[in-house]
Amino acid sequence: MSTTRRIEAALEAAIASSQDDSAPPKLAAALRHAVFPGGGRIRPHLCLAVAQACGDDRPELASVAAAAVELLHCASLVHDDLPAFDDADTRRGRPSVHSAFGEPLAILAGDALIVAAFERLAHAGAQVPKRLPGLITAIARGVSSPRGIIAGQAWENEDSVPVETYHQAKTGALFVAAACAGAIAAGADPAPWRALGERLGAAYQVADDLADAVSAQAICGKPVGRDVALERPSLVRQLGLSGAYARLDALVADAADAVPMGAATKGLRDLVRMQATRLAPMRPSLSAA
Amino acid sequence: MSTTRRIEAALEAAIASSQDDSAPPKLAAALRHAVFPGGGRIRPHLCLAVAQACGDDRPELASVAAAAVELLHCASLVHDDLPAFDDADTRRGRPSVHSAFGEPLAILAGDALIVAAFERLAHAGAQVPKRLPGLITAIARGVSSPRGIIAGQAWENEDSVPVETYHQAKTGALFVAAACAGAIAAGADPAPWRALGERLGAAYQVADDLADAVSAQAICGKPVGRDVALERPSLVRQLGLSGAYARLDALVADAADAVPMGAATKGLRDLVRMQATRLAPMRPSLSAA
Repeated sequence: MSTTRRIEAALEAAIASSQDDSAPPKLAAALRHAVFPGGGRIRPHLCLAVAQACGDDRPELASVAAAAVELLHCASLVHDDLPAFDDADTRRGRPSVHSAFGEPLAILAGDALIVAAFERLAHAGAQVPKRLPGLITAIARGVSSPRGIIAGQAWENEDSVPVETYHQAKTGALFVAAACAGAIAAGADPAPWRALGERLGAAYQVADDLADAVSAQAICGKPVGRDVALERPSLVRQLGLSGAYARLDALVADAADAVPMGAATKGLRDLVRMQATRLAPMRPSLSAA
Repeated sequence: MSTTRRIEAALEAAIASSQDDSAPPKLAAALRHAVFPGGGRIRPHLCLAVAQACGDDRPELASVAAAAVELLHCASLVHDDLPAFDDADTRRGRPSVHSAFGEPLAILAGDALIVAAFERLAHAGAQVPKRLPGLITAIARGVSSPRGIIAGQAWENEDSVPVETYHQAKTGALFVAAACAGAIAAGADPAPWRALGERLGAAYQVADDLADAVSAQAICGKPVGRDVALERPSLVRQLGLSGAYARLDALVADAADAVPMGAATKGLRDLVRMQATRLAPMRPSLSAA
């Protein structure tokens, strides 16, 4: 089975298990809307790439770990889009969950996705219980307070924001979780994989800042997007567009270097570079700007 | 250590682990506000009572299970109080989390409490990994879709609501989870404890409907509270006040009967009846009405 099919099948199983004849129909529809069709599924791809590099001796557990990371990412998007945060009407070219189903169901759908992530891990972990505590801990840390996504989002409500801490929490932590979870699911030590997650997460954050600035540039001719409007820390504000692109290139090279030496090193480095290309699809038009 | 102290200490450890120097200060404060000081802590008391009846051979795991159930309950209160749901300014006589910290931090605090519940379970379960899959599954089912609290709350957004399913999900499921988690944490079969959770949950739901109606009666002279205003299914609407009280008494007797026979049976039955008395503190004034 291809990696993409593994991820989609594990997500499908998670959503199916949250729904049966006794489920409230609108919540069931909101959960499906939040997860399918997906975006790049970058985090679960990272998780499975690491699991494969580590032998992937429990593919079912690795697939569920990858899906759990993606469910938590989707939950964060559903809540981020709420009126209290970004107030975004669209997501991936379709209505956001709160636009389509209303605010109460969007809040509940996010909550349900968080719980489903851990419920699926427990289900898959029943066959290999010794790996479960480490796996859940690694994934939970990617989203929890004090250093996960939720803390990252909360920093936006503070008067003073330490930029590095904010970016590491808001974006880096779940990439680290994805990489470590892949190793743990395959029975390997996660420590050597941490740096890969950190650097890919940092690259992704720069790419995200760039996307925000570039989409604003396309509309209003200057690189001032939502980040600036919402006074969020942004590397584009700090370094300018070309500086941010140079930083992205350096981070991708760093991420490739962070792949531990082993049988799968070359393939995984290629994958990192390929994913990195997908991160910044706007570059050609930009380099002309 | 008394049961109350075990519960408070486990909750304190959970909140402390979500906070350190790198935590966003307002989120840290919101998490503490959501959990302390608590209400009756009825669910964690039930969890530990069952664990003790089952031998309580891993008290640390049972305490964390009890705390996890309470963290999830607190998360549901924080989100229920949001403007998109009950829009409640106060909770337990103090400002609700969104009143005190704003909507974004209330949404994030609820999310963080959900994650913390599972993170703590994984941490404590590292010593007894074989019990972890069942424990997490039992607790997750108390809140997840299709049959937990989140589904129960979501039923309020449907056009047609099956009353039994709604009440079982919104209130019963977490009581069942608390009872089953107590047994599993102590290495026992949870099946015999399910009925106790179901019946106590049902009793609690009737008590909650009564509290809603009675507090409205105290204010406006008729038993029409928030449930009726929000068109929620309510047993008081269905049975009247005295009918609802009769149902409460019957459910408490049923719950006491549901305690499995064993060394701890009598003490546990007494505890059920005592907790039930605490459920309905408004009865004396009401019986005069």
